[in-house]
Amino acid sequence: MATPPTRDAAGALSAPVVAIHAGAAAGNSIVIEQAQRCRTALVQALDAARAVLEGDGGDAVAAVQAAIMVMEAFELFNAGRGAVLCSDGSVELSAAVMASDRSAGAVAAVQKTKYPIAGALAVMRTPQVLMVGTAADAVAAQAGLERVDSDYFITERQRRRLVEIATGADHATVGAVCVDGHGRLAAGTSTGGIRGQPPGRVGDCPLIGAGTWADPRVAVSCTGDGEAFIRSGVARYIGALLEHGLPLHEAAQRALSEVAEVGGEGGLVAVDADGNAALPFMTVAMPRGVWRAGDEPAVWITADDD
Amino acid sequence: MATPPTRDAAGALSAPVVAIHAGAAAGNSIVIEQAQRCRTALVQALDAARAVLEGDGGDAVAAVQAAIMVMEAFELFNAGRGAVLCSDGSVELSAAVMASDRSAGAVAAVQKTKYPIAGALAVMRTPQVLMVGTAADAVAAQAGLERVDSDYFITERQRRRLVEIATGADHATVGAVCVDGHGRLAAGTSTGGIRGQPPGRVGDCPLIGAGTWADPRVAVSCTGDGEAFIRSGVARYIGALLEHGLPLHEAAQRALSEVAEVGGEGGLVAVDADGNAALPFMTVAMPRGVWRAGDEPAVWITADDD
Repeated sequence: MATPPTRDAAGALSAPVVAIHAGAAAGNSIVIEQAQRCRTALVQALDAARAVLEGDGGDAVAAVQAAIMVMEAFELFNAGRGAVLCSDGSVELSAAVMASDRSAGAVAAVQKTKYPIAGALAVMRTPQVLMVGTAADAVAAQAGLERVDSDYFITERQRRRLVEIATGADHATVGAVCVDGHGRLAAGTSTGGIRGQPPGRVGDCPLIGAGTWADPRVAVSCTGDGEAFIRSGVARYIGALLEHGLPLHEAAQRALSEVAEVGGEGGLVAVDADGNAALPFMTVAMPRGVWRAGDEPAVWITADDD
Repeated sequence: MATPPTRDAAGALSAPVVAIHAGAAAGNSIVIEQAQRCRTALVQALDAARAVLEGDGGDAVAAVQAAIMVMEAFELFNAGRGAVLCSDGSVELSAAVMASDRSAGAVAAVQKTKYPIAGALAVMRTPQVLMVGTAADAVAAQAGLERVDSDYFITERQRRRLVEIATGADHATVGAVCVDGHGRLAAGTSTGGIRGQPPGRVGDCPLIGAGTWADPRVAVSCTGDGEAFIRSGVARYIGALLEHGLPLHEAAQRALSEVAEVGGEGGLVAVDADGNAALPFMTVAMPRGVWRAGDEPAVWITADDD
């Protein structure tokens, strides 16, 4: 995962890199029980990003979006279809995207936008950065994005889990980070939040600087106890640490240790402008993967997978 | 403003310090036209914080809340009563609070909670950090906070301005930061957003790490072009800069220069654990004030006031 990137004679990055996660999962999670299905979904997500990056004009933002849309459609991850349910049985989805030029967009508590990450991109093209609730769904609809009834998102599995387990964090939030062949970086994250959360609760995922961040040095997407990630300002902190010369892996670890200090757990994926990738997590498993130009996609589920 | 704090023989901070702002205003703003009324409101806000800090057990969080509630009640500032209106004539209020122990609470798009900063404190006492919309108003009501009809917030002046000027940023957001006699820090911010904003738009104010931040080193409250402050991750960045040894004033200036780089303007107030205060801004005016134990409150409106 930490393979240094290939550079040509001029020092330019010759290899686009994509890293993805599907949440930092606690024990006994579905992602471990159904590891093979999850691996397949991860490979599909990386392939989608790869297709963008190998195509004409495909950039980091489009690659991140493509990877996340695959994971939003996969019903075992906590994003888009199959997301966890709020305490009242409803579903409220959030997503954010940010690029190294500091453009950013996010939606929180959407209920009708089929691909919340696409909704975040729609907001990115407006003067706003964060839109919440029905207004966020409206921005997505106005941009021509596919609209669905809330029932599309709600699976029988999550209905059952809400009754059987009530509240609890599966942390199967999904995210992607990318540095493209032109050195542009992007980060995106998408989630259904915490099972049994009160409607109206917003976690770190759609908050630029908390769960999602990109600047000219680094792109970061987080997963875990959302409130702990907000209180640690994790993603923005990693940007500041790289500015002060810390290597990516050290910066990512230090940011996660701040999360632990406030009592939280989780993980993150990050890539820097040099094409290094870091995928640290504190949990038993974090479905994750990396693709580099010239390589095949590599995916892992548990910590032992490495 | 940059007077070093008084320390006793043991090195403990002997002087609580409070710094407040009422927005980084563009030219011709009401805060310049009615400077004397604004000065009076600022002194009242500082006095309210002072009363808390001189009382039994008054801490930084309570002082910040007291100062902001005064400014929320003052109808010339863009927070609470007198806040700007959304494009549809409605009002959507946001507020956040954070303490140096990393506890945090925020509300966005509330319409019924008389003092949004009190709503943020109510959320801080729950497992959540950010609640939006009617759910946020409900948390406040459940905590026994005063509930009002939206008409309470809407002034004739703002109704007129929405028609006459349509959209535009007054930046009269309010905020307060404090280090108390025990070295605890807190930051809070409250706003009505941007005049003519689409309902559902959330700016930097309620986003921990963007417009509001506190850690054991520093407390920060921002005002200005919200989206630019989000994209710069201003408040969290200042925390990281202090961790790397930058003096408060230098850190605050560097963070504001990031805002300028993404095309935004604004200002902020910050205090560090040593009792230093910084109140930088890029605009013609920023109503602001400082109170230190043993001193009288000092307040200023324009840049020339210094």
